[in-house]
Amino acid sequence: MGTPSISHRLAEAAVALFDENGYDETTVDDIAARAGVSRSTFFRYYRSKEDAIFPDHDTLLAQVDARLRASTSDTGIVAVTDAVRIVLAHYVEDAEVSLRRYSLVRRVPALRDREIASVARYQRLFREFIGKWLVGTPDADLRAELMAASVVAAHNQVLRGWLRTGGTYDPSPLLDHAMGYVVAIFRHWEQPGKSGDDEVVVATFSRSASPQAVMEAIQAHLQPRSPKTGEEH
Amino acid sequence: MGTPSISHRLAEAAVALFDENGYDETTVDDIAARAGVSRSTFFRYYRSKEDAIFPDHDTLLAQVDARLRASTSDTGIVAVTDAVRIVLAHYVEDAEVSLRRYSLVRRVPALRDREIASVARYQRLFREFIGKWLVGTPDADLRAELMAASVVAAHNQVLRGWLRTGGTYDPSPLLDHAMGYVVAIFRHWEQPGKSGDDEVVVATFSRSASPQAVMEAIQAHLQPRSPKTGEEH
Repeated sequence: MGTPSISHRLAEAAVALFDENGYDETTVDDIAARAGVSRSTFFRYYRSKEDAIFPDHDTLLAQVDARLRASTSDTGIVAVTDAVRIVLAHYVEDAEVSLRRYSLVRRVPALRDREIASVARYQRLFREFIGKWLVGTPDADLRAELMAASVVAAHNQVLRGWLRTGGTYDPSPLLDHAMGYVVAIFRHWEQPGKSGDDEVVVATFSRSASPQAVMEAIQAHLQPRSPKTGEEH
Repeated sequence: MGTPSISHRLAEAAVALFDENGYDETTVDDIAARAGVSRSTFFRYYRSKEDAIFPDHDTLLAQVDARLRASTSDTGIVAVTDAVRIVLAHYVEDAEVSLRRYSLVRRVPALRDREIASVARYQRLFREFIGKWLVGTPDADLRAELMAASVVAAHNQVLRGWLRTGGTYDPSPLLDHAMGYVVAIFRHWEQPGKSGDDEVVVATFSRSASPQAVMEAIQAHLQPRSPKTGEEH
């Protein structure tokens, strides 16, 4: 669909060369030459040859961030589970590169480390976003961390399953399903707007549970007060 | 406390040199010389200069794995939240190195990437362990992923808080608290031994919740059948 962008051509060239000649044997010059651009053009798009095979995470992160800021959702967790769809869609749109990259990443530890590190950037963005929703509530940092980690883990589980089976289906219903889990687990930690007073909180115990386990369960299920309906009014 | 091991001396030397002379300027030879060992000895302990400042993750992972295998806990998630204490204890035991490393990792992206990648190895170990507990239950892969990610996220949140404030307190009560959260969130996904039939499952809704949200919540709270009390008996 139209002419691929330079960054895309570079990514395709890098994947092809790593595949054909091996990761260690491929240089930045080789990649630039195959994509028909200069070495300095390569470095305008990527910092290193490891970077070249990954999606443009800076751009993707900015898109995810913009989606979060524009969200009209009444809870942070719903906004995040919505925004993460942008990431999966990016992999699916360019399935061929995604699949070849996946096979490379499994073979080359340096690429695997790079991929894992890029995932951490999304998790941090989500943690900070959710953290703002939870300001002033009990254990806000811990809760924001758990929620962000769960969104990323569920996304990656769906993405990995899709990659492992050769990208032969549309993974978005599975993402919906996984994000439904995450929202169901965590949304009671937030108090969504005015509907909060309608909520009923119930916990689940084994009759043989220890008092400690019961206390922890109650604590984890307690609703924090929303920062929006706090004392300043 | 006895003579520090060679791997420990190398780690101390690496941290000191990175701090004093900068990460880029320090070579493997510099580190080996400072620790009073040969270059080839260095490479018996670490693969690269990035590796040298991190705990011996192979050994730590083996310890965590051994603790998991020896666990007599009646749920996978409790076994994992117990085993992860080994990792925090390792950082706390060697607080000085941990704190200097933390300050380096924040400044040097290559070290940050390496640290993030090492965290992923624990998450994978936990996912595989919990996955065995959930075999044959609905959404086992997704649930194992969420549980493992949450344990790691909660552990890291406690560890990071301790490092950020200069390691001035014993973080284990905070880890207990964080792991209590994780267990409370997830233990109903497992059916712990015979007590399962005693459990009461209840979900939490807003009166204004959509039918979709209610369905997802019910689904996330349903108890899978335990593989141990499954059809083979």
